[in-house]
Amino acid sequence: MFRKVLIANRGEIALRILRACRELGIATVAVHSTADAAAMHVRLADESVCIGPPSATDSYLNAIAILAAAEISGADAIHPGYGFLAENADFAQMVVEHGFTFIGPDPEHIRIMGDKIRAKQMAVELGLPVVPGTDGPVSGDDEAIAALARDIGFPLLIKAVAGGGGRGMTIVHGEEQLRESLRLARYEARMGFGDDRVYLERFLDHPRHIEVQVLADRHGNVVHLGERDCSLQRRHQKLVEEAPSPVLDMAAREAIGERVATAMRKFGYTNVGTVEFLWQDGEFFFIEMNTRLQVEHPVTEAITGVDLVREQIRAAAGEKLGFTQKDVRFEGHAIECRINAEDPRTMVPSPGKVQAFHAPGGPGVRMDSALYAGYTVPPFYDSLIGKLIVHDVDRAAAIRRLDRAIAECVIDGIPTGLPLLRALFAEDDIRASRFDTGWLGRFLERWQG
Amino acid sequence: MFRKVLIANRGEIALRILRACRELGIATVAVHSTADAAAMHVRLADESVCIGPPSATDSYLNAIAILAAAEISGADAIHPGYGFLAENADFAQMVVEHGFTFIGPDPEHIRIMGDKIRAKQMAVELGLPVVPGTDGPVSGDDEAIAALARDIGFPLLIKAVAGGGGRGMTIVHGEEQLRESLRLARYEARMGFGDDRVYLERFLDHPRHIEVQVLADRHGNVVHLGERDCSLQRRHQKLVEEAPSPVLDMAAREAIGERVATAMRKFGYTNVGTVEFLWQDGEFFFIEMNTRLQVEHPVTEAITGVDLVREQIRAAAGEKLGFTQKDVRFEGHAIECRINAEDPRTMVPSPGKVQAFHAPGGPGVRMDSALYAGYTVPPFYDSLIGKLIVHDVDRAAAIRRLDRAIAECVIDGIPTGLPLLRALFAEDDIRASRFDTGWLGRFLERWQG
Repeated sequence: MFRKVLIANRGEIALRILRACRELGIATVAVHSTADAAAMHVRLADESVCIGPPSATDSYLNAIAILAAAEISGADAIHPGYGFLAENADFAQMVVEHGFTFIGPDPEHIRIMGDKIRAKQMAVELGLPVVPGTDGPVSGDDEAIAALARDIGFPLLIKAVAGGGGRGMTIVHGEEQLRESLRLARYEARMGFGDDRVYLERFLDHPRHIEVQVLADRHGNVVHLGERDCSLQRRHQKLVEEAPSPVLDMAAREAIGERVATAMRKFGYTNVGTVEFLWQDGEFFFIEMNTRLQVEHPVTEAITGVDLVREQIRAAAGEKLGFTQKDVRFEGHAIECRINAEDPRTMVPSPGKVQAFHAPGGPGVRMDSALYAGYTVPPFYDSLIGKLIVHDVDRAAAIRRLDRAIAECVIDGIPTGLPLLRALFAEDDIRASRFDTGWLGRFLERWQG
Repeated sequence: MFRKVLIANRGEIALRILRACRELGIATVAVHSTADAAAMHVRLADESVCIGPPSATDSYLNAIAILAAAEISGADAIHPGYGFLAENADFAQMVVEHGFTFIGPDPEHIRIMGDKIRAKQMAVELGLPVVPGTDGPVSGDDEAIAALARDIGFPLLIKAVAGGGGRGMTIVHGEEQLRESLRLARYEARMGFGDDRVYLERFLDHPRHIEVQVLADRHGNVVHLGERDCSLQRRHQKLVEEAPSPVLDMAAREAIGERVATAMRKFGYTNVGTVEFLWQDGEFFFIEMNTRLQVEHPVTEAITGVDLVREQIRAAAGEKLGFTQKDVRFEGHAIECRINAEDPRTMVPSPGKVQAFHAPGGPGVRMDSALYAGYTVPPFYDSLIGKLIVHDVDRAAAIRRLDRAIAECVIDGIPTGLPLLRALFAEDDIRASRFDTGWLGRFLERWQG
């Protein structure tokens, strides 16, 4: 096992890693920008090194400074957390080349999954379901294209090869519209991009975001730890995550979990990772893989009893997984809410001094936060200041527990997302689990008025 | 289910009950003395009633004032918590007679178990093991007494009928000492108390305190939720409790649990209760039964996933238990530490203003406390100000988690027991679970210097 780990991150995740290290008997080195000298992760670490000025580019993204800190402190491993350098394959490579252990997967796996096109190709190779579509631009007569379209299924999108970012897309709801839509799409593509090539892809009009957590050691053992449902997101920023997904039954859970575990075995993947899917009407479609610990890992910890950060450190140290797939059990339901330092009516970040902080307590409540009374949230970084995680026997009970925990949570001095979270869980759609990835955006338009 | 519950208590347990009520959708009424007007349970309750001056006799023990508060607030049930009126059969009776539900067992069960002599007789009737001894004073010739002694086993105590409180007891280590010891004991009893009658009882020289948690509805369903080991106590005040007991294997756990559940079924007991035993060398000996929720209930909640306060409220409301014995599973290991407002070197209470309070967070950590920054711990009540509960995969991991959680816990402004707790878990005896009910007292003599 490692003797000393450098934590190349800040905020609640630095604290999370520090806790795991301490419980494993590993000394910790915090790194921090000048803006974070009084941060909780610095206060609680065994030692700390200032790595630069406030700007993340010059501090938490400064690979050279971080490696130097590891050298001078005598760390033998580096944990990147999430964000910052966590999915930077070059950084992982440098860490290894400097003789440290990178607490994460091999750089090559990070590199492949970091390139969204290669990632999708790899998903296909690994036998993971992807959004059905034509391999390239469609050509041929109407009947040939109609046959392709039938294979893909409706509704589908005609996408201009030269389009992107939401431009150059036409929705087709049934075969009877196909010929006319195709002609129009090609015309628009030629007019808009000077290139009339188009391809076809299934259109998911009410998907949920469901992701599968995997954990793999360096001895070929891979387990999945079930899924998380993170459909409540705004502009691809998750706000609420839960496990298990309310829309999967145990058979579906085991099927997708086993499929992902098999794929990761074939991939030769190690450490923790998350394979993200869109899910609609019983079908999964690969989006991307996160080759790191995720913000929402605590909901999986709550329902499985597995400490993911501890296991990830053990795996990186070369230890064998202490359990097998059949030991993994899912108990009850967990929900995580991200608490952001922002005005929920405007989504404008709200850095500033926290005058009072009181974490909710009692059974089934976990607060992961680096806040303390008197702490000043700096304006330089992500606005996530805390995660409130509840666990209870079922989803309805977990929501009631969340309601009371939110009511107990005190963060005075700056606006936070707590009022939004309170409002969300009063919505029938949320309580009944009737939402897709677009729901929160529509709700916010209404709620923000 | 109840609409409104009056919580006839204060501090962390009032908060615990309030949380359970809120999660069940029940409105809460706090009662408080004038000293507790700014207390957390008052702040968080839906309504509150001042029931008297600081002295507990005039407030939290004032049954009339509490019943009046229930009347005026329109509560339909009263939860007594632990301590104060929780085991007062007359109060429970009054509650019922005034048309409220008492969230606890029937007054008659409280009454029987509250009388320590009747309780022991009842334990025998219910088939629970008690400390072996003669039924009354011994008489007859030496051989007859020796036969009785052999049945009881050595070491045993010769106890003067007129003795008590530790006086008039003689330890006998083997049959060869019996005759001489008996003569001496009778002589001393006659000299000391004017009454030479003596009786014999097994002497437990290195017992552990192990207690079994039961939960029963009003429909005849009784389950046990395993045991807690509370051997770390000083003058019968528990300081650290854990579940499961490190000295029981699963077969022993199920055997004593089933025996207690069977006894409670025969007793007709309802609601939550704890049957306390001394345990030595594989044998259990009934001490007493607590007919109420216990301080240390969270360790059982941690390893079973059962919310005991929620279940107790449901049972009192007449609901059927939602699970059976075979659904009860024990996962991992949990430890609770009581944090007292006292100087651990002197055990002198330390009321006063809490300048800063920061609860430990992260996975597997629960803090039950009514503290907040700026709160003044009043001098009038029990010195318990918080309970830190950790849960992890096994005992060694739970201790490491506890170590790091204690390190994170900040209570500034008043001396607390935290330094003692930190010192305790550095002891090899604690880590190796080599302790009996006398261990903490011996340790404190040494540690307090």
